Amino acid sequence: MKRAAYATRGPVPQDVIAAEEFEAPKLGEGQVLLEVMAAPINPSDVLTLTGEYGMLPPLPAVGGNEGVGRVAKLGPGADAWAIGELVLLPIGSGTWTTHMVADAQRLIALPPQGDPRQLAMLSVNPPTALLMLRDFVDLQEGDWVIQNAANSAVGGYLVQIANSRGLNTINVVRRDSAIAGVKAAGGEHVLVDGDDLHKRVAELSSGAKIMLGIDAVGGMASERLARSLAPGATMVNYGAMSGEPCMLNPGTFVFRDLRLRGFWLANWFRTTPPEKQFKVFRELSQQVVDRQLHARVHATYGIDQIKEAVAAAAAGERDGKILVEPNKG
Amino acid sequence: MKRAAYATRGPVPQDVIAAEEFEAPKLGEGQVLLEVMAAPINPSDVLTLTGEYGMLPPLPAVGGNEGVGRVAKLGPGADAWAIGELVLLPIGSGTWTTHMVADAQRLIALPPQGDPRQLAMLSVNPPTALLMLRDFVDLQEGDWVIQNAANSAVGGYLVQIANSRGLNTINVVRRDSAIAGVKAAGGEHVLVDGDDLHKRVAELSSGAKIMLGIDAVGGMASERLARSLAPGATMVNYGAMSGEPCMLNPGTFVFRDLRLRGFWLANWFRTTPPEKQFKVFRELSQQVVDRQLHARVHATYGIDQIKEAVAAAAAGERDGKILVEPNKG
Repeated sequence: MKRAAYATRGPVPQDVIAAEEFEAPKLGEGQVLLEVMAAPINPSDVLTLTGEYGMLPPLPAVGGNEGVGRVAKLGPGADAWAIGELVLLPIGSGTWTTHMVADAQRLIALPPQGDPRQLAMLSVNPPTALLMLRDFVDLQEGDWVIQNAANSAVGGYLVQIANSRGLNTINVVRRDSAIAGVKAAGGEHVLVDGDDLHKRVAELSSGAKIMLGIDAVGGMASERLARSLAPGATMVNYGAMSGEPCMLNPGTFVFRDLRLRGFWLANWFRTTPPEKQFKVFRELSQQVVDRQLHARVHATYGIDQIKEAVAAAAAGERDGKILVEPNKG
Repeated sequence: MKRAAYATRGPVPQDVIAAEEFEAPKLGEGQVLLEVMAAPINPSDVLTLTGEYGMLPPLPAVGGNEGVGRVAKLGPGADAWAIGELVLLPIGSGTWTTHMVADAQRLIALPPQGDPRQLAMLSVNPPTALLMLRDFVDLQEGDWVIQNAANSAVGGYLVQIANSRGLNTINVVRRDSAIAGVKAAGGEHVLVDGDDLHKRVAELSSGAKIMLGIDAVGGMASERLARSLAPGATMVNYGAMSGEPCMLNPGTFVFRDLRLRGFWLANWFRTTPPEKQFKVFRELSQQVVDRQLHARVHATYGIDQIKEAVAAAAAGERDGKILVEPNKG
């Protein structure tokens, strides 16, 4: 058994993490052994390695926060599960590992016909997209939403969820080469960011009042997105891919009564009763199985290639997610 | 009769405004002639001259948005008023003028024993301070509030209103020389801004949860203020004295669920029924008369000195407000 662990944090994330062998753990009451099939490397995982994330596990730690596995062995009192069942790994459990022990009651069963790679990306990005669309502004069918970083995994899920709810999205990207990916994800309207963004948005949407903007870039991209919004609108930020703070001219948001909020999925996990969380995951996993939700995979890596995998995830400008398939190769 | 008028806007505000003579206007039904006693030059007046404000009157226009006058002549049907009565000038009426005509029903009578200079500053800054304290976060006696630009007129009023409500304020200024002015206005706790602001705030407040931050500076001062706030807190911005956009690290507001809002008094005037506005002004004018509310006056200028007056107001780093006393000298 092998896992990707780290004992320190540092600015170059691939330098701090490494694959290591570990002993097969004993199963306690109500526990199962899982064989991990796939686990993504999300931006939050990279920020956890560099120490920039809002919540840092005690060291040493195993990397990875989500993924999919199969039940490989049952501990005493875990007979409700069957060997081979496909399950969502408990969130935040250190998922870049060939095997892990989990409390059976924390597992969520997945439809056996689902694609493990797609289901491995279920716990973090799809609920982020869903909850940002659902919990800040009361949107009705036909309403417009604008997002930047539209070529990200969250961006792609957001387009798909918005489409399924009859919402129109304007999708902003930072480079021409990202347009095709957003269109492939179902985004009809794609614009490359620039100083006249708000004018092109007004034209594209025929002057629709856009009440929700979703920002993951920061810097002056926040300001450009804000300028595209209607008076009284809300802008939700969930990341800073530019590496810069969000910048907002008071003239933009004071005179037009805009509201800036942040979205952090960890807060939702912390404050939402488990049964409500399960409901969201059941809904989303069915949509993944039905191929209504889908994200591109850029490359997959075995556990021994964890340094290469993390470096690829941290590099940006990818066309899809980096996945760890710990038992591969 | 003379007034300070402008026919263009431009980056140097004193260049576009000039005193000019005008004919005594005829009084229509229900109108009165007012002699203007004092009218301040607010930051918003300067931004109106440079064209940077959120609402710009059609050109040509007379400068000034608030002030105090005396009834000098009654038109037909305005007999409810008496010559010599002290009144608040209608908001936004072009108050840098020796005389103006006003609809009698738009006037608010002021206590005759009030100081006209202090009452002249009543319509803009005191309600800004009051409403920012009152309308965003439900604060209870003993709660803490932090503001920057504490040496501004709004900052001083905010300290006084907070004190009268039993709220604790932490007042942030940008230079040592501004500390004394804030203390004189009643601000017990004054800190000079800096990268470790949040640590000094935590120390000063014994770790109190500060749920409201009030920012008029922008730039990284917004971030430093935000870092001093408790999770779930609201930051209200009403200006950008630094000339820079507000900067906020997603790490600061996403992970701690901060909310950024803007406050613009013009929106309150637009959306609040007149009787509710009158109630606020009656309350505030009584507090001015009782000397519970007071702002420092840096200098006063006659209407012929309007260019010098505007230049002084635009220069910043003053110790108090610039007032126009149109009929002076």
